[in-house]
Amino acid sequence: MKEDMLYGRNPVIEALEAGNTVVDKILIQDGLRHTQIGKIRNLAKEKGVLYRFVDKRKLDTLCAGENHQGVVAMIAAHNYATVEEMLALAEAKGETPFLVVAEGISDPHNLGSIIRTANAAGAHGVIIPKNRSVALNATVAKVSAGAVEYTKVARVTNIAQTLEKLKKEGIWVVGTDLSGTQLHSQCDLTGKIAIVIGSEGEGMSRLVRESCDFLVKIPMIGEIESLNASVAAGILLYEAVRQRNKGGN
Amino acid sequence: MKEDMLYGRNPVIEALEAGNTVVDKILIQDGLRHTQIGKIRNLAKEKGVLYRFVDKRKLDTLCAGENHQGVVAMIAAHNYATVEEMLALAEAKGETPFLVVAEGISDPHNLGSIIRTANAAGAHGVIIPKNRSVALNATVAKVSAGAVEYTKVARVTNIAQTLEKLKKEGIWVVGTDLSGTQLHSQCDLTGKIAIVIGSEGEGMSRLVRESCDFLVKIPMIGEIESLNASVAAGILLYEAVRQRNKGGN
Repeated sequence: MKEDMLYGRNPVIEALEAGNTVVDKILIQDGLRHTQIGKIRNLAKEKGVLYRFVDKRKLDTLCAGENHQGVVAMIAAHNYATVEEMLALAEAKGETPFLVVAEGISDPHNLGSIIRTANAAGAHGVIIPKNRSVALNATVAKVSAGAVEYTKVARVTNIAQTLEKLKKEGIWVVGTDLSGTQLHSQCDLTGKIAIVIGSEGEGMSRLVRESCDFLVKIPMIGEIESLNASVAAGILLYEAVRQRNKGGN
Repeated sequence: MKEDMLYGRNPVIEALEAGNTVVDKILIQDGLRHTQIGKIRNLAKEKGVLYRFVDKRKLDTLCAGENHQGVVAMIAAHNYATVEEMLALAEAKGETPFLVVAEGISDPHNLGSIIRTANAAGAHGVIIPKNRSVALNATVAKVSAGAVEYTKVARVTNIAQTLEKLKKEGIWVVGTDLSGTQLHSQCDLTGKIAIVIGSEGEGMSRLVRESCDFLVKIPMIGEIESLNASVAAGILLYEAVRQRNKGGN
């Protein structure tokens, strides 16, 4: 875990000021008053980094007894891209935009597997929310089988707003839902698309569902009611690959 | 883990003799000589149950200090079915046989996810090898989201021989391999089929590959070279569902 965090007041301040390291989240010791902690809170607000207060014991455990001085910054294993960069990539390659939106995936194995599949399917990027999602940590990177090195991942504050922007760019937003009126294989996935994968437990949130142009369902023929999120992503992304007739190499 | 094992000489002998409990594997303390241990080895041979010798400390750890008397039996969370039962199920339902063969999956999360997907896709069963595969343990059952309660799982001694038997029943055996000459979506999956998923690391073994009627490849468009085994299974099984035009419920 150590490779995914920074601790101590000065290291955290430097990371926030330099801006080269992507700080996912800052954990501050509950009840601690200190000028530098105040500075960290202000810097975090300024840079849009989330912070929350936790019990000292949590920090002690995270740092395995090292002197954290009341503050730990969780660091992304990789830098994030922007949605604009994904669209620019598609344009540069002369390809029809093909994006994946993973809403609220909490299991790093699922997110890693989704990024791996997005790479394999030739998608131009994976969009995840800042909140309600696991970040790009070491486990995600490992499970992605190296795909995080190649496939752009953007982290946005509000998925529903991002989807609205994508729609203005002429991108069709396709979500999966048991209430979907058509099968995933009956939906035209050959155009500019963003495929939304809901969270493991509850699927898509209401706002995100309402932002979708199409709701499709993957047929469930047996007794169980849902698929693993990364398996569902694989089925949808490869249905798009099939329709787009990409033989690949 | 305790719910997945039995220990002590008499309990293990009883389990082997009664045959109601499915014993996956027996661990015997290295160097231990005892009449009952000899009886256990003979019973295991007779019933076709694998056993191996391990260090006493391994048994101590497994049993958390309980008195194991030098023997631990790993118990399946569920009973196994036979391939014949799967074919009988297909016939009873008036459906074209649709089987999944998972060769040498070592990660219980992958096997659980494959069984879950097999259930969702309406497959008639999942065949796994006795050796070189994780067994139906508590983790597999949990990850399968309950699918192990519904979907038949058969465990066979020799996958290649089982595939030869299936072929005699008129079932086409489809394997995935990077050397595949056609895309998975170009292969006719509407007939009687068994889809083979290779192990996470090495894919299918040579003998199993040679038993396949068709080798198909899932297009890999990005930089990475392979998909997670359970994601690959999802893509193949749902391509079969699409071709079979099963809308489901």
